[in-house]
Amino acid sequence: MMREIERDELEPLATGAWILGAGGGGNPYLAYLNLRTLYEAGTRIRLMDPMALADDDAVAIVSSMGAPLVGRERLSDPRFSAKPLLAMQTYLKCEFRAVMSGEIGGTNALQPLMVAAVTGLPVVDADSMGRAFPEGQMTSFAIDQLPMLPLVLADIRDTEVIIPRAENAKWMERIARKVLTEMGSVAAACKAPRTGREIKNHGILHSTTKAIRIGRTVHDARRRHEDPIAALVEAEAGAVLFKGKVQDVSRRATEGFLRGRVRIEGLDGDRGSALELAFQNEFAAAWRDGEVVVTTPEIVCVMDSVSGEAIGTEMIRYGQRVSVVVLPVPDFFLTQKALDVTGPRAFGYDFDFRTVLAGRTK
Amino acid sequence: MMREIERDELEPLATGAWILGAGGGGNPYLAYLNLRTLYEAGTRIRLMDPMALADDDAVAIVSSMGAPLVGRERLSDPRFSAKPLLAMQTYLKCEFRAVMSGEIGGTNALQPLMVAAVTGLPVVDADSMGRAFPEGQMTSFAIDQLPMLPLVLADIRDTEVIIPRAENAKWMERIARKVLTEMGSVAAACKAPRTGREIKNHGILHSTTKAIRIGRTVHDARRRHEDPIAALVEAEAGAVLFKGKVQDVSRRATEGFLRGRVRIEGLDGDRGSALELAFQNEFAAAWRDGEVVVTTPEIVCVMDSVSGEAIGTEMIRYGQRVSVVVLPVPDFFLTQKALDVTGPRAFGYDFDFRTVLAGRTK
Repeated sequence: MMREIERDELEPLATGAWILGAGGGGNPYLAYLNLRTLYEAGTRIRLMDPMALADDDAVAIVSSMGAPLVGRERLSDPRFSAKPLLAMQTYLKCEFRAVMSGEIGGTNALQPLMVAAVTGLPVVDADSMGRAFPEGQMTSFAIDQLPMLPLVLADIRDTEVIIPRAENAKWMERIARKVLTEMGSVAAACKAPRTGREIKNHGILHSTTKAIRIGRTVHDARRRHEDPIAALVEAEAGAVLFKGKVQDVSRRATEGFLRGRVRIEGLDGDRGSALELAFQNEFAAAWRDGEVVVTTPEIVCVMDSVSGEAIGTEMIRYGQRVSVVVLPVPDFFLTQKALDVTGPRAFGYDFDFRTVLAGRTK
Repeated sequence: MMREIERDELEPLATGAWILGAGGGGNPYLAYLNLRTLYEAGTRIRLMDPMALADDDAVAIVSSMGAPLVGRERLSDPRFSAKPLLAMQTYLKCEFRAVMSGEIGGTNALQPLMVAAVTGLPVVDADSMGRAFPEGQMTSFAIDQLPMLPLVLADIRDTEVIIPRAENAKWMERIARKVLTEMGSVAAACKAPRTGREIKNHGILHSTTKAIRIGRTVHDARRRHEDPIAALVEAEAGAVLFKGKVQDVSRRATEGFLRGRVRIEGLDGDRGSALELAFQNEFAAAWRDGEVVVTTPEIVCVMDSVSGEAIGTEMIRYGQRVSVVVLPVPDFFLTQKALDVTGPRAFGYDFDFRTVLAGRTK
């Protein structure tokens, strides 16, 4: 029900979370270095099974909000990550039982571990996305209509902002984006606390364990000089969608998002074909020779064909030899209520959800 | 120590506050119409002598923040004005004894009356500027180093934002400006609460009474067909600086402020001379034939030469026949610590405080 996260699980967690980032969520590597340093200094972090939470336990949902690229310059700092949780505790006059990530994909998978290192709280083995998504309403909690307030933001100085009320989730997001932009385009956040009961009923459970498992699969295959991508899709019931060479990338930072398209020319079995990918932070849709083959919320991941390392939408570039992998998103996101919020139409596309994973078409 | 504000004091308060606005602070006329309607419906508002406050009484400092021009389109609404006070009370788990304006110049002079109408609290007869100033650090409380947090902002929807901590006053201002811009360029605010002791020691006392008195002087002179401007400078120990016709106005909305210059050609005794005024929301300096004659923080007011009505920097225009009047700012603002923050150098000018009011040069 509660166990220590071992030192040699930290790197697999970072690798796995980056794959679950679906191209977005920010590379967890710097957060991993932070955690490694903390472990070398003797810190140990506990992982708690969500089913061990009491119904009325209060759990802090922490994240880093803002532009992932800024996170490359402003290095993660555990004390900074923990500030909004402490402010939320003061504001609500509550004691948190544990801390949890809202998003297992990308660097936010490691955010609760940094907060745990500062506060001594255990990390709940769950999240609310099962991957990375670009917008705040795309969580299982928001889709299930749980209240998304209050929100606390803190910057690297001594500034804190609480949003206790908002007309709706969109207004909360609008105000929060302006605040974090002024804070330097990145802020540590503590989102609406969740009870143990809410997490057990509406969370994406055991996703930290899943990220570690995915990372382990990749690392083990590398160590055995086997194909890490083949090992990954085998172990996670995914599929290799395409293999090729990146031929063209268009990318623009707009309205607080990184949007763009990638064109990949086929190699090996895919020679003569081309795959196009569109992204809004994360990959949202893939067209093979002009036809839609996979869409959000399915997890589309572009990986280095040799190392099996995930490649983020902010780093993908001409000439890379890549494999495009599709991994199954948790079933919750294939319900109609979730597809309404996370499916291709929610991203402005005029087509419905599609996937290449057998038995998963709605 | 506590008395009811009479219905026929409301219009003089609006007139006097607009004069004390020194060209800025927003025209209080719409807030006056609101209050008149409330009085017609039976509401009565009490005015409380600040010396009657107990040392540990908590007083809410309320204001409308944002672009005065937007306030012309989004009409004042007493319930909206009171929202941040109620949120502050919930946040701090305190009971306010009374409500007070941070700024007696312009529409913020009437803001606490609207909040008082909703909450039933009395209005403290004091403020922290004795006029209008463009920036948050230009209050007697900030100059005397009292803490300026927390700040609560509310919009006309259902959105509230609390800023409990900031690196310094400038960071509080930066974050708050972004939030209120997203809220539609205007927000109702409840600033850092003050104790009775803080108000008695650091407030600008009896300024509501002063604004009503100034308005009465102007109205009485008009009714008796006397010169309201002569009556005003006589009663308030001020001076008429210049009489003339507005010849040129340049004005731009920049960085959240209305900045510009006005050129007035002399008439009557000033024929052959020209007066130039520079403003940042409020009038900040006056040059007569190229020489600086009056600067902030002294109260410079441009008035219609016939009616004695103040003319705001957002409305002044070619052809108006105006009198430029100088009224004494409260002595507190002539101390060196206050001049450092509100004098001409704080506005970027390379000269020291100057005035035409005898016996007041530092």
